[in-house]
Amino acid sequence: MPSYTPPVDDMQFLLHEVLQVARADIPGYGEMEPDFTAAVLEEAGKISAELLAPLNAVGDAEGCNLENGVVRTPDGFKAAYGQMCAGGWTALDADPDHGGQGMPYLLHSAVGEMFASANMAFNMYQGLTHGAISALQVHGSDAQKATYLPRMITGQWSGTMNLTEPQCGTDLGLIQTRAEPRPDGSYAITGSKIWISAGEHDLAENIVHLVLAKIPGGPEGTRGISLFLVPKFLPDAEGNPGERNAVACTGLESKMGLHGNATCAMRYEGATGFLVGEPHKGMRAMFTMMNEARLGVGLQGYAQAAAAYQGALDFACERLQGRALSGPANPDGPADPILVHPDVRRMLMHQKSLVEGARALVFWGAELIDRANRAQDAQADALISLLTPVIKGFLTDKGFEATVLAQQVPGGAGYTRDLGLDQFVRDARITMIYEGTNGIQALDLVGRKLALDGGQAMRDFFDMVKAVVKTHADDAELKADFLDPLKAASKDLQAAAMYFVAEGVKKPENALAGSSDFLHLFGHVCLGLMWAKTAAAARAALAEGRGDAGFYETKLATGRYYMARHLPATRLHLARIETGADTVMALPADRF
Amino acid sequence: MPSYTPPVDDMQFLLHEVLQVARADIPGYGEMEPDFTAAVLEEAGKISAELLAPLNAVGDAEGCNLENGVVRTPDGFKAAYGQMCAGGWTALDADPDHGGQGMPYLLHSAVGEMFASANMAFNMYQGLTHGAISALQVHGSDAQKATYLPRMITGQWSGTMNLTEPQCGTDLGLIQTRAEPRPDGSYAITGSKIWISAGEHDLAENIVHLVLAKIPGGPEGTRGISLFLVPKFLPDAEGNPGERNAVACTGLESKMGLHGNATCAMRYEGATGFLVGEPHKGMRAMFTMMNEARLGVGLQGYAQAAAAYQGALDFACERLQGRALSGPANPDGPADPILVHPDVRRMLMHQKSLVEGARALVFWGAELIDRANRAQDAQADALISLLTPVIKGFLTDKGFEATVLAQQVPGGAGYTRDLGLDQFVRDARITMIYEGTNGIQALDLVGRKLALDGGQAMRDFFDMVKAVVKTHADDAELKADFLDPLKAASKDLQAAAMYFVAEGVKKPENALAGSSDFLHLFGHVCLGLMWAKTAAAARAALAEGRGDAGFYETKLATGRYYMARHLPATRLHLARIETGADTVMALPADRF
Repeated sequence: MPSYTPPVDDMQFLLHEVLQVARADIPGYGEMEPDFTAAVLEEAGKISAELLAPLNAVGDAEGCNLENGVVRTPDGFKAAYGQMCAGGWTALDADPDHGGQGMPYLLHSAVGEMFASANMAFNMYQGLTHGAISALQVHGSDAQKATYLPRMITGQWSGTMNLTEPQCGTDLGLIQTRAEPRPDGSYAITGSKIWISAGEHDLAENIVHLVLAKIPGGPEGTRGISLFLVPKFLPDAEGNPGERNAVACTGLESKMGLHGNATCAMRYEGATGFLVGEPHKGMRAMFTMMNEARLGVGLQGYAQAAAAYQGALDFACERLQGRALSGPANPDGPADPILVHPDVRRMLMHQKSLVEGARALVFWGAELIDRANRAQDAQADALISLLTPVIKGFLTDKGFEATVLAQQVPGGAGYTRDLGLDQFVRDARITMIYEGTNGIQALDLVGRKLALDGGQAMRDFFDMVKAVVKTHADDAELKADFLDPLKAASKDLQAAAMYFVAEGVKKPENALAGSSDFLHLFGHVCLGLMWAKTAAAARAALAEGRGDAGFYETKLATGRYYMARHLPATRLHLARIETGADTVMALPADRF
Repeated sequence: MPSYTPPVDDMQFLLHEVLQVARADIPGYGEMEPDFTAAVLEEAGKISAELLAPLNAVGDAEGCNLENGVVRTPDGFKAAYGQMCAGGWTALDADPDHGGQGMPYLLHSAVGEMFASANMAFNMYQGLTHGAISALQVHGSDAQKATYLPRMITGQWSGTMNLTEPQCGTDLGLIQTRAEPRPDGSYAITGSKIWISAGEHDLAENIVHLVLAKIPGGPEGTRGISLFLVPKFLPDAEGNPGERNAVACTGLESKMGLHGNATCAMRYEGATGFLVGEPHKGMRAMFTMMNEARLGVGLQGYAQAAAAYQGALDFACERLQGRALSGPANPDGPADPILVHPDVRRMLMHQKSLVEGARALVFWGAELIDRANRAQDAQADALISLLTPVIKGFLTDKGFEATVLAQQVPGGAGYTRDLGLDQFVRDARITMIYEGTNGIQALDLVGRKLALDGGQAMRDFFDMVKAVVKTHADDAELKADFLDPLKAASKDLQAAAMYFVAEGVKKPENALAGSSDFLHLFGHVCLGLMWAKTAAAARAALAEGRGDAGFYETKLATGRYYMARHLPATRLHLARIETGADTVMALPADRF
């Protein structure tokens, strides 16, 4: 089974040398000094490696079991969950007014990567709770906050999101779950929900469901959807779990992976629910959760790749097959470690350069969220709104691809369950689907986000690229290896955006047929930008003679791989986009 | 669970309109008239759809079980195997001198695609036997052929390939299994083999293992390897299964997929083996099996994609979510089928154009094998030798990618086991690994095949491309949509080959760092060539007003998608190749 080595050094480098967080003008960032973040990251890393990673294969093998309406999580999950709560990890970035520690979302994300790499299925129990906390924080009443937030922040109670029904997932206008008003101001919720992650389990003493439903007589479609809070146990006068509510888990999905997390079918039979926010404004409230969840899913995608890479690397260093072209690297052994072979290195560099670039992008995205929320920065808010579908879609598609490549390194051993790499592939696969399939992310990006506010956020992004290129224009090496390729890729992105502007009005299908390619094109430019910034930070450290020169040289070499071998994909995506919808839409439905 | 619709029309089109087999100057092809092949394909299709496909999910769920040395295959496999044997499907292209039906390998391949689409794990039991038959046919003694071939051809006995050992897979020079000569001319085989597909099972009354081992005192490395025939039961004087040989299955691998096929660890304890061919020439004999097996694996790759596509398409036609941009397609329903959405179409066209192009390539490859074997055509032999790693590597990488895309179409439902699409992903995954990982295919292509005979086969390939472009140069529509893109892609392939010639001698790592990209570049040009030929055949039929015009229009539209949206990837692969080994080999081993 794979062991897990927390990437504390890389995270510290990103926080303090690339993002320079302690100097950022964001309330609360001042405390984020290197010693402080190192202490948090090291402790989280220890838990990840020692407590969570060993339970990952257990969760995969055992899965969850439903008996008489009760879901049992895999052996060891309950004890580990208790330790996570006791250690305050569920409260890291939560509101101090309700018992949270008030740290930046950025630190929560860094810690979250480790937890997700070590055990994605386990970490989702608290991940869903985190999303529910955010939604209540923004849209809940003071009374709801007072009752629910403190218990959710400690992890004593957990949370869920209930959107999908058997007849609708993406098209939420079709939901049928009803909320009938009662005289006491509560609602009777009736309906069936499916694919509810952590919908029922034995880790927490209560489960707080956030449920989309329609109040009879409201508007048609998504404009008639409201959000309700439906606790598994109704809180009594002291706020402790009281009467059992009329909500039950009626089945568990049998899935390709993510076995340690209970994916539940839920049945509401006139369950007592409480309106969150205004009637018929449920979609807005749900999007608060969903945007955060989408960033979290992008994180999961590369976190699986990060963990899989470690397993592939271990194998490549230990397995002896063949000899290096340049002469034996292990002359006393029967053969050389396969790490000497160019194609094995290609696979590893492909993963490594993706994972480290992705980490930089997610950290930057988390900083933008902090800037938007803590410094009320509207520009940062618009930018992260634009980047959210890119982070979700690109990092999960590429993260999955990287787990497949990691599994390829050991050959046959990668296909057996013993090595554990197949679990990362199977677990990562869901990240391309849930919280909106990646096709929906692309639609959101091209059909909605791109044009928001006259395309201002997109222009802001291009300005940032230009600023980075300009700032370092005098560094000839940085220019050749990083800035010129970034400029070329950014030009491809601009050409694609222009194509959509020109064609989108004439024939919207021409934009939508290229939406997934656009998302990938944008993703590559984002990672190109991250690598340019990373390389600049590494060059600065080398110039100043700071720290471990080998670390910075490695960063530069890894970035050069990305720029040389990943980034040229922008040209392919642009070429596809510019062919428009003709070849995509040509066939009559009965000729497929 | 997915149903399976045999692609008989497409196969008939390929055989008779693209390849025009009945007119090919290959012995035995004269009988391949449309009515005859249609009858065979329809019967094979019926068995695939009605007998094999329903057992696919059963095999996945039950897997194989080892108890007291006996492997039980999943429920229904034994009866189905009996029906396959009784129907003569194991004997289709086998030598009539030993009871075979003597049909072309091409027809065996067409039938094999259906069997593999319907139930890949099941079909491998007879697939391995087919490979063992081929090896014995070429390298076995007359006595060995007389004893073993008739029983293997009927499927009464099955076959295996035993190469891998715990300490070596790719690097067979390291094998430790010993073959000690005995006075009676037989050998005592001792050693451990792993990952032996169909190494033990309950389908056949005897299992004929072909085993690589070293005769003590022979040359070092791969030059000291010999091939042995080791039957599970030693034939008695009448050739019936007699004494149990000292070979046993000691364990089954727990794998990501392919659960219906037993992947065995085998232990040979002084088992009686018989030399096949000459001592120390085992690698040559094994390559007879392996080349055929590699083509068969390429076929499996796209066959999984073909089956997965059907499942995705069914879902896309039935699932109602959202509305078409161009106005409701299903105005009386609550929403339109998701097939109306451009990104869903993109995913389906991506799969469809790949699968149909891949089918054309494998059919052409099978025809080359027939031409080489039946017409002793050395040029065809050299060409299929060059194309074998491309067919194996490209069609399994892209086939897997297509199964992942098929699983994406239904979103969450694709991730559940109920829909059955995840099995195609998990089963297809092994095709990128076994019979030589795709990295090894790329190494074989660039390090060996490309330069064989001074690069003659590569030149022959380019000549074929040029000939197709020239033949149809006057067809303006064909030129714009198919020939010009093919020419551009072929130019990229030439540039890559030139780069390897120029750099390969100076710095071989520059060639090997680009080997996987070269394999993909080559694969795309092959499929571009297939689509150009396919389009020309469709245009001819339309011009003559033959048959179902909609079928030919669909072919052209599907081909246009390939040329517009798949083929431009050649540019990306070339760009990567031309960056050489620098970024790939830059890191010291301890900095990964």
